[in-house]
Amino acid sequence: MSKLIIKNIKLLVAAAHTFPEKVAGKAMQDLPVVENAWLLIEDGIIAGFGPMEKIPSTENAEIMDASDRFVLPTWCDSHTHLVFPQSREVEYTDKIKGLSYEEIAKRGGGILNSAKNMQEADENQLFADAMQRLQEIVRWGTGAVEIKSGYGLTTATELKMLRVIKRLKAESPVTIRSTFLGAHAVPTEFKGNPDKYVDLVINEMLPAVAAEQLADFVDVFCDRGFFSIGQTSKILEAAAKYDLKPKIHANELDFSGGIQTGIKHKALSVDHLEYTGEEEINALLESDTMPVILPGAAFFLNLKYAPARKIIDAGLPLTLATDFNPGSSPSGNMQLIISMGSILYKMLPRETINAVTINGAYAMGLQKELGSITPGKKANLIITKPIPSIEYIPYAYGENKVEKTILNGIVQ
Amino acid sequence: MSKLIIKNIKLLVAAAHTFPEKVAGKAMQDLPVVENAWLLIEDGIIAGFGPMEKIPSTENAEIMDASDRFVLPTWCDSHTHLVFPQSREVEYTDKIKGLSYEEIAKRGGGILNSAKNMQEADENQLFADAMQRLQEIVRWGTGAVEIKSGYGLTTATELKMLRVIKRLKAESPVTIRSTFLGAHAVPTEFKGNPDKYVDLVINEMLPAVAAEQLADFVDVFCDRGFFSIGQTSKILEAAAKYDLKPKIHANELDFSGGIQTGIKHKALSVDHLEYTGEEEINALLESDTMPVILPGAAFFLNLKYAPARKIIDAGLPLTLATDFNPGSSPSGNMQLIISMGSILYKMLPRETINAVTINGAYAMGLQKELGSITPGKKANLIITKPIPSIEYIPYAYGENKVEKTILNGIVQ
Repeated sequence: MSKLIIKNIKLLVAAAHTFPEKVAGKAMQDLPVVENAWLLIEDGIIAGFGPMEKIPSTENAEIMDASDRFVLPTWCDSHTHLVFPQSREVEYTDKIKGLSYEEIAKRGGGILNSAKNMQEADENQLFADAMQRLQEIVRWGTGAVEIKSGYGLTTATELKMLRVIKRLKAESPVTIRSTFLGAHAVPTEFKGNPDKYVDLVINEMLPAVAAEQLADFVDVFCDRGFFSIGQTSKILEAAAKYDLKPKIHANELDFSGGIQTGIKHKALSVDHLEYTGEEEINALLESDTMPVILPGAAFFLNLKYAPARKIIDAGLPLTLATDFNPGSSPSGNMQLIISMGSILYKMLPRETINAVTINGAYAMGLQKELGSITPGKKANLIITKPIPSIEYIPYAYGENKVEKTILNGIVQ
Repeated sequence: MSKLIIKNIKLLVAAAHTFPEKVAGKAMQDLPVVENAWLLIEDGIIAGFGPMEKIPSTENAEIMDASDRFVLPTWCDSHTHLVFPQSREVEYTDKIKGLSYEEIAKRGGGILNSAKNMQEADENQLFADAMQRLQEIVRWGTGAVEIKSGYGLTTATELKMLRVIKRLKAESPVTIRSTFLGAHAVPTEFKGNPDKYVDLVINEMLPAVAAEQLADFVDVFCDRGFFSIGQTSKILEAAAKYDLKPKIHANELDFSGGIQTGIKHKALSVDHLEYTGEEEINALLESDTMPVILPGAAFFLNLKYAPARKIIDAGLPLTLATDFNPGSSPSGNMQLIISMGSILYKMLPRETINAVTINGAYAMGLQKELGSITPGKKANLIITKPIPSIEYIPYAYGENKVEKTILNGIVQ
C-alpha cells in the first residue's frame, strides 16, 4: 500500500468527515477548515486528516512538508469544450470590432467554423493538443473536468471527438466526464430545416454514441437562434432512453425557457444563465438542478453578467466553470474564474471556493468522489504557494497561487 | 565580449533599425516584424537581426534555438506601487459588498491602511517581498517597471520606501524607474488641513528626496477627494526645481482637471483616465504627455472603463500598465493587462503590444533604451511558448505565453 502524509499544513480547506453533496444559499459562505493539519493519503485515496498535535505514526509513509501552505481539493471544472482543432484568434479581431456572437456565426465563424476544421482534423493531433491543454489546467489546480463534443455536427465527427475524450479519460490522470453535444448548432447543410438535423441527432447520433458508451451526459444549446424548447425536449427525451442525463446550455442570449426545459428533464446542471429572472430562480428552487455560471465567456464576449448574487441569496447552490473553448472563452484557468466570480459577480471568497469544488463536482455527478477533503474521496489536491488567507485566492487575480497539484495521490 | 545568437525565430516582433519614440493613432496598428529570423546580442545589447537566409557567422557565440517561438521586447510596466508591506485582501470583502474606494478610505482602509503598515514595516522585509514580486512579473514577461512611493506619508517612511526602490534598482536585473508620490493621500494627522501636508511634501520631503537622489519622477493623486488642481500645481512646481518630471494620477474618479494640470506641467504621463472627454483629449493632442490606462484597477474596482478607443482614434498614443498595488489592483501580470486592453477596451491586438512596449518605455523615459528590438537597445526580450500569431497573445487571456524572459542578454 502506498502511503503519503502531508504535514504542517497551514490551513486544510473544505475538510470534513462527512460533506454535503452540494452547498446552497447562506451555507456557501461556510468552509470547514483545520489549522496546522496533517493529511494521510493511501493508494490515491484520502485516508484521514487532523490537527498536528494528533499526527499518526508516519512509519512506511512518504512525507511531504506543507509549512506556510494551504491544501484544498482540486477545482472541478464542469463545463468545457477543450477538445478543439485550433485556436480562433483570427475571428477575434471581428469580436473586438464589436460583431456579436450571432453575427460572427452568420459570417461562417463561430461554432460552424470549428466544426469545419474538426471534420478535417487528425484524431491523434486532437488528442495530443487536448492532452497539452489538460496539463496546462492541472498547473492551475484543476483535477476534474467535463468535456463536450459539439464541433463535429456530423455523426462521424461527433464520434471522433467523443473517442478522443474517451482516450483522454484513459490516459490522463485528470478525472474526466464526457458530454454529447450534437445539438451545439445547426450545421450549414441543414440551414432552414433544423428539425431534420434534430432527427439526425436523435436517430443516428444518439444510438451510435450509446452503442460505444462514449458519453456520460447529453447537452443541447437551447437558446434564441440555436435550438428551441420543443427541439431540446425531443432530444432530451430520446437521450433519457440511453440514461444520458442532461447538462444544457441555457439562457445565455435570452429568457429562452432553457432553464425550465432543463429542469423538466431533470438536468444535472443548466449552464450560462445570463438571462435569469424570478421565474427561472423559482423553477430552480424546486429542482435538484445545479445552476452553472461561466464568467470567462461573459468576460470575453462582454455579455451581461448572470445574477450570481440573486441566485445564491435566493437559497440556491451555484457553480462556476471556465467554458474553455476557442470561440467564446479561450482559457481553462480556474483561478481566474474564481477571481472573476468574486470581482465581477460579487461572490464572497468562500462562496467561490465552494462553487468550484463541491458544487463543481455535483455538476458532473462526482460529488461522492471529489469536491472536498473527506476520507474515502480521491486524493485530488492543491498545495498552494505560501499565501496569507483564503481571501487571497480570488484577490490576487493574476497570479498562480498553486504550487503543486496532486492527482490520485501523485504529484503532477 | 559575450555573444548570444537566437536563431530560427518564427516571428521577431517590433523589430526595426530605427524605431519611433512612441506610436500614436493609426500607427498603433503597425508592428514591424521579421519572419524566420535571427537576433544577435552582444554584452547584453541588441547588436543586429535579420532573416535566417542572412544569418551571420556564429563562431564564438552561444546559440539559442527559438523554432516555433516568437521574440518580442519585454513589457514596460510604467505604473506600479509594488513596494508594499502586505496584501490587503482583508478589506477586499468590503469591496465585494459594494463599498467604494472612498468609503473604504473613510473606514481607515485603503492607502492610509497601507501607510500605517508601511511605517512599521522592516526595510529588509520590504525589499525581500518586492524582489519576489519582481521575479514573479519577470516570469510574465516584464523587463522594465516604474515603482512609486506613497505608502509612507511621513518624510521618514517615504524615504524608507524610496531607499528600498533604490536597492531594487541596484540588485534586480529589471530596469526600474522610481517615482516620489508623497501626495498619494492626505494622512489622518492632516485631516481638515491638507494644505499643511502639501507644505510638508514641498518643504521637507522633496528636498530630502532630491538630496539623496532617490526619485526619477514625481507623482500626485490629483482627483476628487485627494489633491486639488491648486495643490497639485504647487507640488509640481516645487518638484520642477529638482528636475523631477511629473507622472500623475488623473481623472480616475471625476473630470477633475488632473489631465490638464499634468500637461501644463509637462508631465511625462497622465495615468488612469476613466473620466476623459473631448476637452481632455484636445489638451493631450497639443502635448507630449503619454496617456496611460490601468485596466487592472478598473477591473478590480468595477470602475467605468477609460475611453481607449476614443483616445487612439483621436490620433493619440496610449499605454497600458498594471497599477500593481495591494488595494486596487493586486496583480503585476502584464499579459492579463494586454488581454483586458483588447477584450474590455476594444484595442486591436497590435495596438495592445505597442501600448505595453514602446509606449510603456516612453511613459518611463526609457524609449531610447527599451521598448523595441532595435540595435543599440538593451536585450530585454521575451521568448514565447509556441504560439500561432500575435493575436493569440491577448486572445488566450488566462495562459502564460512567455517561456523565457531575457534581461540584459541573460536568460532569467
